[in-house]
Amino acid sequence: MPEEIASLPTADLTLAIEAGDQSAINALAQEVHYADLAQIYQDTEEEKHGLILKSIGPEIASDVIVQLPDSMIEEALDHFSPSELKVLFRELTDDDRVDVLQDVGDEARQRYLGLLGPEDEELTRSLLRYEEDTAGGRMTTQFGRLFASMTVKEAIETLRRDQEITETLSRIFVVDSKGHLIGRVRLRDLAFNSWNTPIREIMKEVGPEQRALATTDQEEAANLLLKYDLIVLPVVDEFDHLLGIITHDDAMEILQEESTEDMEKLAGIAGETVEETYLQASVLTHFKRRFVWLFFLALLAIASGYVMMRFEGTLMKIFLLSLYLPMVVAAGGNTGGQASTMVIRAMSLGELTEGTSIRVIWKEFRLGMILGCTLGCSIAALTIFVLPAFQPELPSGVTFTRFGLTVAIALAAQITTSTVIGALLPLGARAIRLDPAVVAAPAITTVVDVSGMIIYFTIAQAILGL
Amino acid sequence: MPEEIASLPTADLTLAIEAGDQSAINALAQEVHYADLAQIYQDTEEEKHGLILKSIGPEIASDVIVQLPDSMIEEALDHFSPSELKVLFRELTDDDRVDVLQDVGDEARQRYLGLLGPEDEELTRSLLRYEEDTAGGRMTTQFGRLFASMTVKEAIETLRRDQEITETLSRIFVVDSKGHLIGRVRLRDLAFNSWNTPIREIMKEVGPEQRALATTDQEEAANLLLKYDLIVLPVVDEFDHLLGIITHDDAMEILQEESTEDMEKLAGIAGETVEETYLQASVLTHFKRRFVWLFFLALLAIASGYVMMRFEGTLMKIFLLSLYLPMVVAAGGNTGGQASTMVIRAMSLGELTEGTSIRVIWKEFRLGMILGCTLGCSIAALTIFVLPAFQPELPSGVTFTRFGLTVAIALAAQITTSTVIGALLPLGARAIRLDPAVVAAPAITTVVDVSGMIIYFTIAQAILGL
Repeated sequence: MPEEIASLPTADLTLAIEAGDQSAINALAQEVHYADLAQIYQDTEEEKHGLILKSIGPEIASDVIVQLPDSMIEEALDHFSPSELKVLFRELTDDDRVDVLQDVGDEARQRYLGLLGPEDEELTRSLLRYEEDTAGGRMTTQFGRLFASMTVKEAIETLRRDQEITETLSRIFVVDSKGHLIGRVRLRDLAFNSWNTPIREIMKEVGPEQRALATTDQEEAANLLLKYDLIVLPVVDEFDHLLGIITHDDAMEILQEESTEDMEKLAGIAGETVEETYLQASVLTHFKRRFVWLFFLALLAIASGYVMMRFEGTLMKIFLLSLYLPMVVAAGGNTGGQASTMVIRAMSLGELTEGTSIRVIWKEFRLGMILGCTLGCSIAALTIFVLPAFQPELPSGVTFTRFGLTVAIALAAQITTSTVIGALLPLGARAIRLDPAVVAAPAITTVVDVSGMIIYFTIAQAILGL
Repeated sequence: MPEEIASLPTADLTLAIEAGDQSAINALAQEVHYADLAQIYQDTEEEKHGLILKSIGPEIASDVIVQLPDSMIEEALDHFSPSELKVLFRELTDDDRVDVLQDVGDEARQRYLGLLGPEDEELTRSLLRYEEDTAGGRMTTQFGRLFASMTVKEAIETLRRDQEITETLSRIFVVDSKGHLIGRVRLRDLAFNSWNTPIREIMKEVGPEQRALATTDQEEAANLLLKYDLIVLPVVDEFDHLLGIITHDDAMEILQEESTEDMEKLAGIAGETVEETYLQASVLTHFKRRFVWLFFLALLAIASGYVMMRFEGTLMKIFLLSLYLPMVVAAGGNTGGQASTMVIRAMSLGELTEGTSIRVIWKEFRLGMILGCTLGCSIAALTIFVLPAFQPELPSGVTFTRFGLTVAIALAAQITTSTVIGALLPLGARAIRLDPAVVAAPAITTVVDVSGMIIYFTIAQAILGL
């Protein structure tokens, strides 16, 4: 609904771009939010990118460029002269500047670093040392920092002086004389207290759990913001010196990215989540991410075919077995996929610490038994009471009751096995420091296809005496 | 790492609960963050819940209770007397109070409403009118609201008076004399401007796109916060009157819940995401959510078995077909699952508007063709050059080349069909106003199992002349 109301300036901007009207583009760009501007930029054909960037100028462009997919950033920066780039980089907050520099080639990165002032260059180089997906790699150093020994008056003066360079004053952190993080104050605490109150008296302590080490994984850090309802999370080094903060909007982005990544991995889509939207990404990009698993799984599926061929004799004797073959096999894939999804999601929500693996497997084992027995009994009942009405042929000595029993036991065994495998694989992956989500549901499906064939035919041989 | 540092007070608290030491529990509860307190509460056996709640008292309990899973809330409230409940409900912010009341039975809700003061009761009843999963159902009305005609001095006085009841002053909204939302100011703008500046001069306009209607779906509202990097999103009625705000922490929770729900649906897990963690939820809860789809899919899989039986003759003539049968069938499930996941995720990230369906299908069609032909050619090559080394029997007239050609064409056809079906089903679900994610990957797998069998055997009959 809000988008309908907003459609006018963005629609005008699109028209101005079509018409190549630089001054109209510039005027309209002031009215449109940078997130929408970035969207329009991406939806415009590449030949017009230079026109857009030149028209809006380096200051507005700096807001737009940080919103672009990684792969489009270097091309966008190429449209600017060195002097324009100086302006552009000065406009960026330090964490955005680092993000941008992480997304360009080495040569370009060095060239851009040379355009920064000496202070900014030093700061940026120090931030670039952190891995891109850690708390340090995502933090900003532009925030309100006060000493506990200051008065409210000194604090307000400090913040007033720094306000241009601070990204948020929603939370202001308090350090001791050595720079250790000890507390936080809110701007309202300063505004509503008398000027000679010491900061130490009005600050709230920051608990040891409400901070992240710079080397912490970004998802873990974002989960802390979520758990403790924080607007900003302070980032410290191993000696508890306050280094920077991660803001709520970055945390939200991190969590969304990680969710997308988990979902894609679960569906057997390889590689990093691309920042292009679904429609922007080329067919080739999609192809590359999907083919790897598809190919690997196809080879793996030959194992199922091989097992089936080995049981040719059994199948020949009672071809009615094929009626339930896809069901037994698929039921394993379905329960295995359910189990792995539940376990992987619980892990990424931080619910399953390493010590809980045994409890998880015990839970899935019981679940598998109950699911398998319930489904097995239902299908057995169907086989015994409904199937005879269709008058299929059974070889002498084989009854519908025995046939139903075969299916029931096979389903129970297959589902129990698959459920446990579905939980075991991601837990095992984590134990050897792999991303649990990489054990995609399709992989589990293919693995339990093989076990399903073996279980089904072996039980049939035993019970039906084939 | 932070959790290790934090482990001491929480560990002490757990010990105090074990020992039943009320005063120690009370003292330690002051030191522990409410999120951790809620975690400890949930990890403690139910008999001790009363002890914990009585020890910490209604004020701290109010913070804990909002963190609990829906199903645990009514039981927790039962431990308090009406006079304690009065305190507890007074401590809650209005949106949390509404959340709590939505999670208890009708009888309890009416009883609790009677405990609120007349003003709170009226406010709460008016908020309860919004659906639980809309912007109105999630908003708080406790925020800083100023009139454009005020001066900075008047504004600061207003906020100082209201500060106890406002949930956040990170953003303060400005309305005109009729209550229409027109702008926002930051506390720092007030703190750093002279006292007689009119608010109208220092406020920033709030664009029409940066607000949500009260009836907007909560996920859509949360996506606005994410897109525009907002700390708070204003919520308005259809006449643009400012009703309330949604804060960033609620938005993060909404997005996490929706991601979990999508993932679970994609894996064929039915029903609403439970708020209990994976380990807390009972085996029965897990069973109920997994069995529905499992049962339905098992019945559907009989169709595959039926198709297989119909092609008994074909399979009998050349049993080597069974070597590739699981592969052809599973490749469809895998690509169908990939396609549906990509499309469903893109939809929930708001990337695919209704008009783009044709582009999506065209993209998936091309992708399916390329994936299918590439995989088909690879497997054909394997069949023609590697398979003969294993000397399997072929009936007279059938060559390995023809056999390879069969597999290649079947794979290409099956993968193209499945990819398109994988994209079509969620798009179709949306078109008839169903949740796209409900067309779970396992459902697609089972559907394309059937088409795979038909495609494979039909092509084999045609090419191999069976």
